[in-house]
Amino acid sequence: MSEINVAIIGAGYWGKNLIRNCQSSQRVNLSAVCDSRESALNFVKTNYPAIKAVSRVEDALNDSNIHAILIATPTASHYELAKAALLSGKHVFVEKPMTETAGQAMELVNLAKEKNLILHVDHTFVYTGAVRKIKDLISKGELGDLRYFDSERLNLGLIQPDVNVIYDLAVHDLSILNYIFNEEPETVSAFANSYVTRQRERAVEESAHINLRYPSGFMAHIHASWLSPVKFRKMLIGGSKKMIVYNDIEPSEKIKVYDHGVDLDFSKETPDDPIYRSGDVLIPNLDRSEALLSEINHFADCVRDGKDTVTNGYDGYKVVKILEACSKSLKYGGQLIIL
Amino acid sequence: MSEINVAIIGAGYWGKNLIRNCQSSQRVNLSAVCDSRESALNFVKTNYPAIKAVSRVEDALNDSNIHAILIATPTASHYELAKAALLSGKHVFVEKPMTETAGQAMELVNLAKEKNLILHVDHTFVYTGAVRKIKDLISKGELGDLRYFDSERLNLGLIQPDVNVIYDLAVHDLSILNYIFNEEPETVSAFANSYVTRQRERAVEESAHINLRYPSGFMAHIHASWLSPVKFRKMLIGGSKKMIVYNDIEPSEKIKVYDHGVDLDFSKETPDDPIYRSGDVLIPNLDRSEALLSEINHFADCVRDGKDTVTNGYDGYKVVKILEACSKSLKYGGQLIIL
Amino acid sequence: MSEINVAIIGAGYWGKNLIRNCQSSQRVNLSAVCDSRESALNFVKTNYPAIKAVSRVEDALNDSNIHAILIATPTASHYELAKAALLSGKHVFVEKPMTETAGQAMELVNLAKEKNLILHVDHTFVYTGAVRKIKDLISKGELGDLRYFDSERLNLGLIQPDVNVIYDLAVHDLSILNYIFNEEPETVSAFANSYVTRQRERAVEESAHINLRYPSGFMAHIHASWLSPVKFRKMLIGGSKKMIVYNDIEPSEKIKVYDHGVDLDFSKETPDDPIYRSGDVLIPNLDRSEALLSEINHFADCVRDGKDTVTNGYDGYKVVKILEACSKSLKYGGQLIIL
Amino acid sequence: MSEINVAIIGAGYWGKNLIRNCQSSQRVNLSAVCDSRESALNFVKTNYPAIKAVSRVEDALNDSNIHAILIATPTASHYELAKAALLSGKHVFVEKPMTETAGQAMELVNLAKEKNLILHVDHTFVYTGAVRKIKDLISKGELGDLRYFDSERLNLGLIQPDVNVIYDLAVHDLSILNYIFNEEPETVSAFANSYVTRQRERAVEESAHINLRYPSGFMAHIHASWLSPVKFRKMLIGGSKKMIVYNDIEPSEKIKVYDHGVDLDFSKETPDDPIYRSGDVLIPNLDRSEALLSEINHFADCVRDGKDTVTNGYDGYKVVKILEACSKSLKYGGQLIIL
Repeated sequence: MSEINVAIIGAGYWGKNLIRNCQSSQRVNLSAVCDSRESALNFVKTNYPAIKAVSRVEDALNDSNIHAILIATPTASHYELAKAALLSGKHVFVEKPMTETAGQAMELVNLAKEKNLILHVDHTFVYTGAVRKIKDLISKGELGDLRYFDSERLNLGLIQPDVNVIYDLAVHDLSILNYIFNEEPETVSAFANSYVTRQRERAVEESAHINLRYPSGFMAHIHASWLSPVKFRKMLIGGSKKMIVYNDIEPSEKIKVYDHGVDLDFSKETPDDPIYRSGDVLIPNLDRSEALLSEINHFADCVRDGKDTVTNGYDGYKVVKILEACSKSLKYGGQLIIL
Repeated sequence: MSEINVAIIGAGYWGKNLIRNCQSSQRVNLSAVCDSRESALNFVKTNYPAIKAVSRVEDALNDSNIHAILIATPTASHYELAKAALLSGKHVFVEKPMTETAGQAMELVNLAKEKNLILHVDHTFVYTGAVRKIKDLISKGELGDLRYFDSERLNLGLIQPDVNVIYDLAVHDLSILNYIFNEEPETVSAFANSYVTRQRERAVEESAHINLRYPSGFMAHIHASWLSPVKFRKMLIGGSKKMIVYNDIEPSEKIKVYDHGVDLDFSKETPDDPIYRSGDVLIPNLDRSEALLSEINHFADCVRDGKDTVTNGYDGYKVVKILEACSKSLKYGGQLIIL
Repeated sequence: MSEINVAIIGAGYWGKNLIRNCQSSQRVNLSAVCDSRESALNFVKTNYPAIKAVSRVEDALNDSNIHAILIATPTASHYELAKAALLSGKHVFVEKPMTETAGQAMELVNLAKEKNLILHVDHTFVYTGAVRKIKDLISKGELGDLRYFDSERLNLGLIQPDVNVIYDLAVHDLSILNYIFNEEPETVSAFANSYVTRQRERAVEESAHINLRYPSGFMAHIHASWLSPVKFRKMLIGGSKKMIVYNDIEPSEKIKVYDHGVDLDFSKETPDDPIYRSGDVLIPNLDRSEALLSEINHFADCVRDGKDTVTNGYDGYKVVKILEACSKSLKYGGQLIIL
Repeated sequence: MSEINVAIIGAGYWGKNLIRNCQSSQRVNLSAVCDSRESALNFVKTNYPAIKAVSRVEDALNDSNIHAILIATPTASHYELAKAALLSGKHVFVEKPMTETAGQAMELVNLAKEKNLILHVDHTFVYTGAVRKIKDLISKGELGDLRYFDSERLNLGLIQPDVNVIYDLAVHDLSILNYIFNEEPETVSAFANSYVTRQRERAVEESAHINLRYPSGFMAHIHASWLSPVKFRKMLIGGSKKMIVYNDIEPSEKIKVYDHGVDLDFSKETPDDPIYRSGDVLIPNLDRSEALLSEINHFADCVRDGKDTVTNGYDGYKVVKILEACSKSLKYGGQLIIL
């Protein structure tokens, strides 16, 4: 199979991860990296002398040998860059969150469809062994009806200069939620505050709680914070049959599947007394390959085959739509937003 | 010091704990236990032959030797029983939540004041070594300005027949919050659902999230659930100087005090870049005496000295006021309630 | 089924547990408790007025209504008391370790056989859900060939007045080992020291390491200590197919069964390169009934049916034999004892 | 300060770590890497084009610009290579264990002294923030008299082709022990077995227990294994005043200092009853800089200043002496070796 040629725009923290994984991949050929900062270009020249380091986006967009553009720039620039890339006939792989507004996201989705190009959003967690396993268990019906999803994504820093903790951290949970559960929420509310950065010109919320309610009664809660003394990465996913505890900090035993539950038994004399059930707990072995590499390979395959990726533009849109609702809720002190 | 004579109304699960601790206490003399159920009275007669077991509340209220009444009946009856006891001239020790409505709570507070009697609400956690230590650290200014409080109180069951998980479990967190932090919230919202009991006549919410916002910017979040496969009892309390992780499941190392933080330094060239600080962590040794016994002794001392207890009727009122706001929010799907 | 009548000798810490469980059991009738200390007799009279409290052992041994004697006295008296009980025609249930010397143990075994009486040693851990499950997994061949057993039984105190930490704590591990693994060790060595009590008249070893080697190559190591700042109760049991981590401090997830291993594959080009295998981990649900109650019921059943118990006198003998070898090794500074 | 010029012999797993850290260091200039394997040389040429890649050791030894040789080859070759380097007038930095026999180690120590050259052994753990902190606490007398050291260093693999688990893993614990505690052991015993590799030509012990007794009564135990399903890296260090639990798997809270203890109080009526003391627990903040880089910088400083390093040849000798005693003990089935 031939490789596809790609260019990366943005050689910051995440851009460097993209470079490293593109280099490892057998399915993409990284031909150019674009960044406007000299230091970033020097990094590329020193460490990857074989890759073209360019300062202008046009150099990549106008290069007819390049099939796809990977965008790893600040969120505010995603929409313009992705649009320009699509208009130049390039497939697009864009960092999360896909855009700042749902309107922009939808515009990109439509443009890609029109141009018959792949629009992919980098919801990296979806490509981890852990999240794949959770999706797999849910798809097989192991959990029964899904009831709740509770996530904690906490640590000390890194406070971002330009986006709040919801756009930076909670977006991961929203992307996982979008992947494992097919419904869309009907209400959204968000509570957050800025304690450290409220003194600076651009304050951003550093700790946030998000509540989502779905038509089926399923509820989700996400707690994201840059102000926790300890790192937590924990999800509880409850079903009517089984429940999952996913602790991403554990080096290997990340997922525990509990065959536990509570039921009513209407054949009993006291049908109102709940019956508690505790069975075995399973810690499934997980695929440990690097998520970003799997994702890049998957993107390359979809580009070649003209098929949608697992986290396509519409998935990006659905996540941005919730982010937007969170921002509205925050603006009104945590008001309930009905979608 | 002479003992005070007390009677307990209600010999159910918690009533039995009260009986056992009254028996251990050197400061109270448990002279009667009242319960309408024959099985409960038999339990008392068999195990505590020296204590009067009576079926009518009046037998205790009319006994002029009895100084105080301890009420451990279902929540719905607290108001009537406490009122009757105060009107009979008895001091009152009542289970949490103090009443069903804030109006009832305030009425009891006023009645006790009028009658010059002690009205005490059993917020047991306030008397644990762990919560005492947290209060102590906050009072000494060790944490700096309080920023957030996040609590998880989760396990599998026991689903209550008559009250939801907020009235049963989250009430503990609200009582702790009321004790350690002096402000009153300005907004309350609650999200909850009933999954198991929605099929029975009396459905109760089994999993809930509560968000509280305070005038100073302090925020609190409480997650209470009867549907978690694993037991969690964890609180994060964040201050501008230090932060606490309180894990009540740990047998001895319950509290960790982190000398960690994030600050801006306006004397720097890049004042907008947060500075992360990680110092030592202290696990303070805690008083391990049984909380309920300490509380009963404290109540007896206050009755004797005519002084308010640490968790008096007004504290009970403040907690019930939030519970009431939660119920309103739930009724409107999680709407923000402005107090 | 009729109950058997029993008497307990010794109403100290463990004796009280025996009393409580005999009272709970439907299969034994506790008719008398014997202790020479007035305080212990008063405890029985106050709390269990229906049970005869006697000060002389003969009162129990000569009572023809009593079928069995439960001995919960200091180790040094086990041999004499058990012998007297057997000679009086009583079945015997004796605390661990069964006797001080292997010779005494064997004498009791022979005497019981001769008299056709049940001689049972109280290796309580064998009756826990956790150890039962481990035995079950091993018996079914799930672990493959057993390779090693490593146990840590550490905490701060309680230093015993009369026996060292091997006789007090490691004896539990030896009894578990004897139950789950059928071989007898061919070498024993023990390393221990007395740090705190070496200043008092009767010094006892407070921290000890025991190494056991078995004919098949199986090895066991036990670390027992009264001088650890933290409580540890951990066992690793390794087999050629699977391995178990048993953490007795965990409230419910005590046993983890790892489908992990290392193998050589002689069909490969590089047969000397080990192949590492990591599969799922299973946390089996465990029977949580109280071990001592199950054990007392089992003893009663065996007395009635004239069948040996699962931890009979010969099991007691085998454990004492290893304890004796440990003492010899200690005497010579940790010398290897070949059995 | 001028840099010192160094050459590395051996570009395998650890050699690559040395290369990377020498490149990071401001105090050494890595001028050559020597390896006999073409693949290793190609790795150097591709990734570090500025460094000379040579296949013959002589090329490095005869280069008069090179001040020091870093040896990262298999253990069996350490002695010959270090000797040749010293004889060529080069300072030496050699991997652990320094040599195969204590005799060889002592010969190198003497040769270095004679030649006035630095002989340094790479006991990397000594340069970690955690071990440094432990040493610091002990030196300040915080722990009181040292009583015991118990270490667990367990995981699944990597079984070495040429050395057993004592030479591969336990050597780390011996180097730490040698650093934090000044005595030398008077007895050594080791118990080990080969389960997986006993079928291949060169069997190596895969799981081992080592016991060390010291003149002062201090005892140490090391458990090292390649056959544990789970990774453990835990040390308990007990003193008469305080005790340390060092869990190297914890990402940040590696060390806990317990102000716990047991004492006798001879002023009491019952002086034989131990008194248990539980105070606070401290988790000190640790220096997180990379140990190997600190070590290389320290080595360079000592070379320049003509001073012994913290882990000099004599420390290497003392560790090898214990390894040798372990091998003797193993040969005789775990016999006690009196040094």
